[in-house]
Amino acid sequence: MIENKNPSKTALSQLGEFGLIEHLTKVFEIGQDTTIKGIGDDAAVLDFKDKQTVVSTDLLVEGVHFDLAYMPLKHLGYKAVVANLSDIYAMNAVPSQITISIAVSNRFPLEALEELFDGFALAAKHYQVDVIGGDTTSSQKGLIISITALGYAQEDEIVYRSGAGDKDLLVVTGDIGAAYMGLQILEREKQVFLVNPNNQPDLDAYSYLIERQLKPEARNDLKKLLADLEVHPTSMIDISDGLSSEILHLCKQSQVGCKLYEDKLPLDPQFINACEEFQFDSTTIALNGGEDYELLFTIKMEDFEKIKGNPHLSIIGYINPEDEGTHLITRENTQIALKARGWNALEEDND
Amino acid sequence: MIENKNPSKTALSQLGEFGLIEHLTKVFEIGQDTTIKGIGDDAAVLDFKDKQTVVSTDLLVEGVHFDLAYMPLKHLGYKAVVANLSDIYAMNAVPSQITISIAVSNRFPLEALEELFDGFALAAKHYQVDVIGGDTTSSQKGLIISITALGYAQEDEIVYRSGAGDKDLLVVTGDIGAAYMGLQILEREKQVFLVNPNNQPDLDAYSYLIERQLKPEARNDLKKLLADLEVHPTSMIDISDGLSSEILHLCKQSQVGCKLYEDKLPLDPQFINACEEFQFDSTTIALNGGEDYELLFTIKMEDFEKIKGNPHLSIIGYINPEDEGTHLITRENTQIALKARGWNALEEDND
Repeated sequence: MIENKNPSKTALSQLGEFGLIEHLTKVFEIGQDTTIKGIGDDAAVLDFKDKQTVVSTDLLVEGVHFDLAYMPLKHLGYKAVVANLSDIYAMNAVPSQITISIAVSNRFPLEALEELFDGFALAAKHYQVDVIGGDTTSSQKGLIISITALGYAQEDEIVYRSGAGDKDLLVVTGDIGAAYMGLQILEREKQVFLVNPNNQPDLDAYSYLIERQLKPEARNDLKKLLADLEVHPTSMIDISDGLSSEILHLCKQSQVGCKLYEDKLPLDPQFINACEEFQFDSTTIALNGGEDYELLFTIKMEDFEKIKGNPHLSIIGYINPEDEGTHLITRENTQIALKARGWNALEEDND
Repeated sequence: MIENKNPSKTALSQLGEFGLIEHLTKVFEIGQDTTIKGIGDDAAVLDFKDKQTVVSTDLLVEGVHFDLAYMPLKHLGYKAVVANLSDIYAMNAVPSQITISIAVSNRFPLEALEELFDGFALAAKHYQVDVIGGDTTSSQKGLIISITALGYAQEDEIVYRSGAGDKDLLVVTGDIGAAYMGLQILEREKQVFLVNPNNQPDLDAYSYLIERQLKPEARNDLKKLLADLEVHPTSMIDISDGLSSEILHLCKQSQVGCKLYEDKLPLDPQFINACEEFQFDSTTIALNGGEDYELLFTIKMEDFEKIKGNPHLSIIGYINPEDEGTHLITRENTQIALKARGWNALEEDND
């Protein structure tokens, strides 16, 4: 999908590999003090001085991670960067550089790649990260995007998954589930479009959900917010693979269990309405939907007063000893074992 | 191609994504002082202290960069790592960590991926780099490998492409062209095999060429060698994309020209014999073949005595002012303009 309705089409073969890379990468600007040398040598050179370096990487495959039928290329580029930066924020670090590699089949004209790179550049600008390298090559089928993000933090600022302790509070940023329901709306519209291409969808009632799916943002505000509140998280994790599975990762690595309260899950009204319309159980979606680039972290119980009432943060439960297990407490006060992913994620606890 | 002749086959779907990643990554060990946290959190954490950080990335696509008909998966894994490390060595830096992401179609059984990961692990061990992260996902077609390599060096040790000066000597490590001829041999054997699968090839006469193609090594010896000789290169570049195009990159970024001597190009006897057999012009192949993970660098003329006669290093020409151009001087003392890549790379200079 190309935003320009009457795109000109330039075959990639007209430029050659070096010409193509030079053309596409000219949208990127270097702005970070830590970047000594960006694109243009065998490797980029960075200088983090006394800071520690944080590195994360992701591979996105067309038909597996995204569908270009409803994902405009510019949005895809933006989202691909956001997804990687979220992992850096989840370490309580500051992202500063990314490398971007793509493989494309010859069905993509140059103008399509320009849209994609505009999305990369927009995200890089918004999140103040430098694009310092990458690779552009051909694929046998479809589009593949590989991004590696680098960032930095002082040693004592970095927060791992493994630091949660008994009685710590479980806190999540923003709200959850909306990106998944946005995807359902877009999937439905795609089917409607296939039946009747002239149908004009009215998506106003779902605008937030669609935005969460097509143009998500990463939590670049949390590090400062917590520093201002003088709260140091004991553990942290990105929940873009789904809240339930990520809580389980955090508990496993911290060797603890937890209790999560169904009535504390932060849900947007549009999300609740869409779940009703689709006859989906909103708790199941909120726990397992994924693609919300929110962060889950734990804090010491004595920090409760500092966090309480903050509109960006929801306390959704607390940590208990490992042998007490990992549970959801329902509105009816039933205890259900948390399971990772899938539609059978919620089952009665027979332990 | 799987080395085990009677492989058992385990479908990837039997393990699930997390199970698969956990299974495959257990072959990796952490050994570097600079690695604070490897695989297992949202991001890896590194500490390079007062050193600068060097970062390079590559994307390899089946059918574009490699052919599994003659490239065993273990060799592919090894070579993919070597190719990335070569870029770090080309900065005169020390590689210390890599991330490895793969996308695979469901035609690959678990045992095939184990071979691939054994190759990754073998290279990581040989070159003493830690595998600190990555991603494993499905592809719509074939195998895709994305590797990002990180390394470090003191600020004053790092060598860029842009530092070559007038009258500097052009030096290349090892010998060139052999990897390309190894590929030709393998391509020929593949065709023979397709006609007669029972034919047993005798490849002894080509053993060096095939090794250069299937199990290349990167120049992890050069940094120490030059330090011991007390030579600091003025510029350096990896020549795996072909000597000719890389010399042009180096000259462009250094804003200089060069003279390269045909009779100084370091060629292995097996390479010369194979070129004769295939009726290829050995100079054309040596200049444009590529996939030799050797390094090209420049040194001050006064360092000539220190380099002279070293069996690992060949002085192949010198730098001249930019307006004198970039030329090859043939054995017949003809001056030919250097061109980047391709079979028409050598044409008479009509400037």
